[in-house]
Amino acid sequence: MPLPLAVTMGEPAGIGGEIVLKAWLARADGLPAFYMRDDPERLAELAMRLEWPVPVRPIAAPSEAVGVFPAALPVVPLDRSPRGRSGQPDPTDAPAIIASIDAAVADVRGGHAAAVVTNPIHKDGLYRAGFHHPGHTEYLAELAGGGLTPVMMLVCPELRVVPVTIHLPLRRAIDSLSFDAIVTTGRITATALRAEFGIPAPVLAIAGLNPHAGEAGGLGREEIDIIEPAIAALRSEGIDARGPLAADTMFHAQARQSYDAALCMYHDQALIPIKTIDFHSGVNVTLGLPFVRTSPDHGTAFAIAGKGIARADSLIAALRLAAEMAATRRARSEARF
Amino acid sequence: MPLPLAVTMGEPAGIGGEIVLKAWLARADGLPAFYMRDDPERLAELAMRLEWPVPVRPIAAPSEAVGVFPAALPVVPLDRSPRGRSGQPDPTDAPAIIASIDAAVADVRGGHAAAVVTNPIHKDGLYRAGFHHPGHTEYLAELAGGGLTPVMMLVCPELRVVPVTIHLPLRRAIDSLSFDAIVTTGRITATALRAEFGIPAPVLAIAGLNPHAGEAGGLGREEIDIIEPAIAALRSEGIDARGPLAADTMFHAQARQSYDAALCMYHDQALIPIKTIDFHSGVNVTLGLPFVRTSPDHGTAFAIAGKGIARADSLIAALRLAAEMAATRRARSEARF
Repeated sequence: MPLPLAVTMGEPAGIGGEIVLKAWLARADGLPAFYMRDDPERLAELAMRLEWPVPVRPIAAPSEAVGVFPAALPVVPLDRSPRGRSGQPDPTDAPAIIASIDAAVADVRGGHAAAVVTNPIHKDGLYRAGFHHPGHTEYLAELAGGGLTPVMMLVCPELRVVPVTIHLPLRRAIDSLSFDAIVTTGRITATALRAEFGIPAPVLAIAGLNPHAGEAGGLGREEIDIIEPAIAALRSEGIDARGPLAADTMFHAQARQSYDAALCMYHDQALIPIKTIDFHSGVNVTLGLPFVRTSPDHGTAFAIAGKGIARADSLIAALRLAAEMAATRRARSEARF
Repeated sequence: MPLPLAVTMGEPAGIGGEIVLKAWLARADGLPAFYMRDDPERLAELAMRLEWPVPVRPIAAPSEAVGVFPAALPVVPLDRSPRGRSGQPDPTDAPAIIASIDAAVADVRGGHAAAVVTNPIHKDGLYRAGFHHPGHTEYLAELAGGGLTPVMMLVCPELRVVPVTIHLPLRRAIDSLSFDAIVTTGRITATALRAEFGIPAPVLAIAGLNPHAGEAGGLGREEIDIIEPAIAALRSEGIDARGPLAADTMFHAQARQSYDAALCMYHDQALIPIKTIDFHSGVNVTLGLPFVRTSPDHGTAFAIAGKGIARADSLIAALRLAAEMAATRRARSEARF
């Protein structure tokens, strides 16, 4: 029997609860079985208020989830119930939010879950409660044992993108761009494309930083000084890295056929094309962890939380992708013995 | 009788000639009448070599173009014949390339042509011949009398984008971003959307520079220090400017419905979305000139020149858009009297 996916609560005042209910309602459409690390009462209340027919079933352990899933939403209760309600976050919920992440990671590391799918958190609230990690991803890397470099990949059916720098002002992103960052990110991306996406010889398209990829130095030197040497280093490791490519001409339908993932130099260079192509069902994937983690590619959306109008497309895509990646990873690791 | 469009020769070793021949062959599809400022012999030779049935007809003046166009490609000959042939530019052609631009601009300024459509030039070759303008656009602005600020807009059926900074290394683009540049660009864009696109109350979506439009200063200060004041200034002039918007979420299909043009802070922020959406038929438009000028949004493509495989989509779109813009401009100026 396949392992279920562990889904975190996320910020209880956000749209996490209702998109989980919506995803469960779409389970007939071949959705992989999942369970929540959450508060069953708040989910049952939410379902009742929205008048959605979702029976919420507390379970004692992840091992019950696959059996329960067809008839009810399985939930392993947290030790404490959150107090935040749709659109109204409560700062005292931080420990429960973190406990849900901890439990889901413990499940997957203990072999009880196939992968972790995280609901959106609201960083400001957690920071005020003493959470000192830049984000979800860095916290997961620490839980996974430290010393890891987590890499963010965004995935939609037509495109995979990996930003080498992420949440930095654009000037600082340029300053922090380095040979090491590109090589490390490229190496982790290529490894994950093999191990978790089942692509034996992945092709990486490496974007330039400047317009027209710098036009041989006429429009900037970073391509020559940083990006080209990094591509050469990746190629010397046997990774099929290509570029630097002009960023404006690498994302149209025909260009996308020529590579498996695009490495981008800054946040918007990666996120503009993928959100332009597929705004609703992009998935955020963390590469470089010892387990599979995906997440819907949106935030807590407080403004619409509790109204039942939030789209579950991205969560559903995150669940499907997590199950596929976990299956690929397992098949490859079993093939080694 | 409507005025014809004046089309420049561009770099004779590039794909300009063959895309013009292809466009003329597609004339039955409602293409506006145009004529070339070019060498009739080189075009006739090219048509013969490609075995395309394009009769090339020298004409003495633009006034003959509309009558000739249905049966033959009308060409007002240049004083000198270019020597470059497909894929093999000749540096002595610079004067002929410039003479073609000069003549087309003189035609439109003299009331003999509706608009100018320029074929791609190869700047390196012109620079070596002493041409000292950064590009086509700046040269046209000088021909138009100087003191003008030309603004580049890229147009496809689904999106219009205007980069505030253009061909600069990304670091320098950030350095050169200014209140004045955004206000001037926004003002010229709004004026052109009214006068040449017939949009009475245009909405401008103004992108932020940093990820998430700076997250209220947490990810950069340019939004607060430069972009927000510029938006306020535009609004105080009665221009419906909105933002700063997170650049990654402003280009998907639904978001695009909410504005008439997006003002972007740097080259790739504008060009990534439009080339991702529509790689082949984007049009480059110069706003802020006293006449309409459009251009296909690609280069000379020496590598494929002369093979007959270059797509004419962008030139055809540039011809159609030039005719529409010129008609709108004329209708509005006539309505004033």
